[in-house]
Amino acid sequence: MKNNRYIVIVGCGRLGSHLANQLSREGHSVVVIDTDEATFNDLSPDFSGFRVEGDAVHMAVLKEAKLKKADVLIATTHEDNVNLMVAQVARKVFGVPNVLARVFDPKREEVYARLGIETICPTSVAAEIFLRAVANGTAQQGGTRP
Amino acid sequence: MKNNRYIVIVGCGRLGSHLANQLSREGHSVVVIDTDEATFNDLSPDFSGFRVEGDAVHMAVLKEAKLKKADVLIATTHEDNVNLMVAQVARKVFGVPNVLARVFDPKREEVYARLGIETICPTSVAAEIFLRAVANGTAQQGGTRP
Repeated sequence: MKNNRYIVIVGCGRLGSHLANQLSREGHSVVVIDTDEATFNDLSPDFSGFRVEGDAVHMAVLKEAKLKKADVLIATTHEDNVNLMVAQVARKVFGVPNVLARVFDPKREEVYARLGIETICPTSVAAEIFLRAVANGTAQQGGTRP
Repeated sequence: MKNNRYIVIVGCGRLGSHLANQLSREGHSVVVIDTDEATFNDLSPDFSGFRVEGDAVHMAVLKEAKLKKADVLIATTHEDNVNLMVAQVARKVFGVPNVLARVFDPKREEVYARLGIETICPTSVAAEIFLRAVANGTAQQGGTRP
């Protein structure tokens, strides 16, 4: 079983840098791409991967990140359009087997699913958790919980 | 058991409007506060609650929303500082029993917990889901899954 994977992360914001640090710590080979070099400061000192400064919507940047040999691509930028485009290119052009993308607009999740791209929508997830908390609060008031 | 609750939601963005629509549909009394009246357009036609236009960091706005009689306050703005402040005021000044807040910066979650405020950090939640997906992908390649 291949435990060490080649993982390309697009976007080095809060989510991207967190994932990069964690996956690097787990022993994976990680490449992070961001247009803003300053975001690389959020990578921890023991981050052993590579940093590519550039816009991932450009093929040259994806090639520099050696996307062709990637096992996983994770698109985490704040732009749904960028994430969608990069994820599609990773899947169709570079043949990356495992493509994950963050989407803020839940309506876009369908589009991704049709393209075989796994998505996570923080808004939907947060909404579910809040609704559950409200429901539990009701139960608490009703005395059905200790 | 009291099923109908008085719920004040601060911020009518994607998360806030989604929660408002859903909770109103479930039969709760919902008040939504936002500085930008245009955001109320995201409320569904069958939303039966109230809209308050104003900045929730001002006491007058919270009073207008009748926060004192609220069972639940949910702070969903895009500003962690605003969410923290409003949540604190709801808890300490208005005595709202159930206070929930979204926080983007995971480091702030501790502060909230100490104040008895339930938080949800979309970044942390998304990170966990992505890490699980990567781990599952590894398992798939290793043939431990069908």
